[in-house]
Amino acid sequence: MCELFGMSASYPTDVNHSLRLLIPRGGEIGPHADGWGVAFYEGPAARIFKEPVPAAESRCLAFISECEYLSRTVIAHIRKANPSTVGRSSANTHPFERELEGRSWVFAHNGKLPGLEGADQGLRRRFRPKGETDSELAFCMMLNELDSAGLGGGYARSPSRFIQRLRELVDGIAALGEFNFLLSDGDVLVAHAHTNLHMILRRCRERGCDQRVVLVTTAPLTKEPWVRLVPETLHVFEAGQELH
Amino acid sequence: MCELFGMSASYPTDVNHSLRLLIPRGGEIGPHADGWGVAFYEGPAARIFKEPVPAAESRCLAFISECEYLSRTVIAHIRKANPSTVGRSSANTHPFERELEGRSWVFAHNGKLPGLEGADQGLRRRFRPKGETDSELAFCMMLNELDSAGLGGGYARSPSRFIQRLRELVDGIAALGEFNFLLSDGDVLVAHAHTNLHMILRRCRERGCDQRVVLVTTAPLTKEPWVRLVPETLHVFEAGQELH
Repeated sequence: MCELFGMSASYPTDVNHSLRLLIPRGGEIGPHADGWGVAFYEGPAARIFKEPVPAAESRCLAFISECEYLSRTVIAHIRKANPSTVGRSSANTHPFERELEGRSWVFAHNGKLPGLEGADQGLRRRFRPKGETDSELAFCMMLNELDSAGLGGGYARSPSRFIQRLRELVDGIAALGEFNFLLSDGDVLVAHAHTNLHMILRRCRERGCDQRVVLVTTAPLTKEPWVRLVPETLHVFEAGQELH
Repeated sequence: MCELFGMSASYPTDVNHSLRLLIPRGGEIGPHADGWGVAFYEGPAARIFKEPVPAAESRCLAFISECEYLSRTVIAHIRKANPSTVGRSSANTHPFERELEGRSWVFAHNGKLPGLEGADQGLRRRFRPKGETDSELAFCMMLNELDSAGLGGGYARSPSRFIQRLRELVDGIAALGEFNFLLSDGDVLVAHAHTNLHMILRRCRERGCDQRVVLVTTAPLTKEPWVRLVPETLHVFEAGQELH
């Protein structure tokens, strides 16, 4: 199993404090020692840092958590390889990214999806995995289907059709195992709570700025009143607010 | 104009020494102050670090140049925005990456390509730019054409057809301006010397290991006898050797 972390904010902000709370779970106080990755959106492009080494031992992640990377949408992941035969490599490290209709789409997953490979008829299709994880395959399958359905423009272009098709795809894949994930099309942050995700909304009005920040994680990072998302629900956040 | 740097080696090696020689050209002793990026291949996936800030001032690049990132294929770029109306952003920072047939393809460019936008009929095509540079558009156009021609498997799958089609595409784009570039399909490093590229081969036999390293850059990095590549020639390197 892995740790997911997502952030959606109304104004660009850093996630340094959250990353510092997350890092020890990658090999120090938690078992997620097989890799880490963080995607920061900047406009239509996501900048992704990832490494197939324990987060708790990564000098690079420690460095990043001290940088002032500001973003309105962030997706991070700390990996426990699963099954253990799918090894440590950059190709197997979340988050995964693909360009569709001129924007970065980013995806990170928590759970197992045995049998997914048999369910995919898409070996000759547009998006294909670089690595061997069920997670990257699920991401590619969803992107292929969204693209085929003319929904590659993302949530904002046609919100209800997008959610309806995504819901169908998610239900199909989730039936094979466990499918908690975070996904972004560059505008919105989509969270699927299959079995286990928590969220919190922080609001801060200062210096004339109404900052709203939504954080979504596998397990609460602080002692604040995090809300456990109802299992089998799909959530869409934009600019620190829940849209769906 | 920008600075290109490429490396192809028979065994994984770091490029720290070269990066340290390259960094001052990004804003300190050179004018290339609008961004930097480095792509390290690890198997089929490239790990890319990039930042739309001067290389010479980047703490992140300084950090990376001290890490022991080992790779057989590396592409780096230091950017001088060109024209100046195409601004600093992650989306406009080289190298660019796309997944095609399950592998990362990486591209970095030196030169101007005025009029390229008019030459592209591919707005509804598969690969589309996230940013506004002529460089990323040229990359997307080449990938779309290679994919359409059934050459998305890369050089190794059909070397002569790959080079023939790439040569046609490169000639068409180069006719619009200046088109020095480095490209990798994950196996080979392709270098197009349109006006200006230099290379050197280093060989080191020690500890039973025959290491061959080819470096390709805009301008020689050291006082060694770098070779200026003949203008308008296309070169293919793999494992530190020239294949074509």
